Amino acid sequence: MLGVGLIGASLLRAVRKRLPETRVVAWSRSPDSREFAAAWAEVAPSPAVACEGADLVVAAGPVDALGGLLREAAAGISPAARVTDVGSTKRGAHAAVAGATYASRFAGSHPMAGSEKGGAAASQPDLFAGRACIVTSLPGDDPAVAAAIGDFWRRLGSRVSRMTPEAHDAAVAEISHLPHAAASALAAMLERRKCRTDLAAGGLRDTTRVAAGDPSLWVPILMENADHLVPLLEELARETEILRQALSARDDAALRALLSRARDFRQGL
Amino acid sequence: MLGVGLIGASLLRAVRKRLPETRVVAWSRSPDSREFAAAWAEVAPSPAVACEGADLVVAAGPVDALGGLLREAAAGISPAARVTDVGSTKRGAHAAVAGATYASRFAGSHPMAGSEKGGAAASQPDLFAGRACIVTSLPGDDPAVAAAIGDFWRRLGSRVSRMTPEAHDAAVAEISHLPHAAASALAAMLERRKCRTDLAAGGLRDTTRVAAGDPSLWVPILMENADHLVPLLEELARETEILRQALSARDDAALRALLSRARDFRQGL
Repeated sequence: MLGVGLIGASLLRAVRKRLPETRVVAWSRSPDSREFAAAWAEVAPSPAVACEGADLVVAAGPVDALGGLLREAAAGISPAARVTDVGSTKRGAHAAVAGATYASRFAGSHPMAGSEKGGAAASQPDLFAGRACIVTSLPGDDPAVAAAIGDFWRRLGSRVSRMTPEAHDAAVAEISHLPHAAASALAAMLERRKCRTDLAAGGLRDTTRVAAGDPSLWVPILMENADHLVPLLEELARETEILRQALSARDDAALRALLSRARDFRQGL
Repeated sequence: MLGVGLIGASLLRAVRKRLPETRVVAWSRSPDSREFAAAWAEVAPSPAVACEGADLVVAAGPVDALGGLLREAAAGISPAARVTDVGSTKRGAHAAVAGATYASRFAGSHPMAGSEKGGAAASQPDLFAGRACIVTSLPGDDPAVAAAIGDFWRRLGSRVSRMTPEAHDAAVAEISHLPHAAASALAAMLERRKCRTDLAAGGLRDTTRVAAGDPSLWVPILMENADHLVPLLEELARETEILRQALSARDDAALRALLSRARDFRQGL
């Protein structure tokens, strides 16, 4: 386990709870996270040492740190080890391992679980239970690798879906990155207006919750998926404009049509 | 109590729980809601009969039904009764009672609590406890009326704020109606795209939760506050465009600045 933030620490705890026989070795750049990890795993002094003898290497750092982290670890990754990451973009992850000695034993992972609170202290051993996990591989990859990594997530309670990195990035642009961007734009706008947040109900809290996420993690995620996200933001702007025009023209039927589609979508979740 | 939807039914149950000595008479247009109300209150055959002898009349229907409901009730409202409503817009509520015999004994109420699930079945006796409730009155109104209605909400556990209907509508446009509109535009757009909702995490659910609200309630609310909401939607479109441009230009610093403001706002809630 390389990296002990929210996802890495939750993963340590999930493995300890659900796969108690497994030997787990962790490494983290942060002294606090290393101390936290020591409660659930052996702690190694470097990424390479953490990987020595491992059947499965999980890189759980920010998406823009993945390449560097795996380069530091490479010398320790055994010729039999399978490798995965847990990042929110997957074309970038596959690009980061292309050419590495273990590239043929890599499949990407994206557990669809998280929290706007980051860090090991916010970790939960059941974070992945009952949640989707997307496992990605390229068309020419050995299917046994993605299958084995999918099994790992299944044993932690996740529902596993398999797809290409391209299909992943297109899908999560819609269901994760666009909601994050929309909530952030709303929160950023309200920040400037100094509005009466003391009076707010749960709607404002929920609508903007993901905007509390760490910009250091989210800037690289949104940037890596910018080609998918930019046209979605253009489409959202058009939908918002339809709503604005319905209000401006006092067009009850148009507003009702939009709110009804919105309700149908939300009730289908 | 006129109307036994989510708010009306929650109010019946809150009064029964926290003010058990109070005699409560309810009326609802819906047979199901009348049956529900019978568990917590006497049920009257008409709005006017429900109001007979009441010290406080609470109209808890949709904002566009308030005027009609109070006209039906008027004959039963005693010369000593105070009157309030619970709607999400307040200029309209004050306009609906202007000229009525009880107009000088009216103050508006907006309990900042609710649920995307409507109807008596979703009611909760503690819906108002610890939540803000805005009580509105016009500059020339008798301050004792708003004070008494504020006391009623305080006894149900609410934090009461007083303001004019105009100030209320401006404030909730930002903290409630804009988030509702933004979540609805996002959900309406995703509805058209048939996206992979089976893979979604909690972020999508939270960001779009309020969009599941009943269009029959929300169309009149958003329309009554359209003059405040339209410029806010224009500002949101500009903020979304700043975000889109940052992504398009791969401008990390601009994206980070926006996400950081968004985070500051959300962490301040």
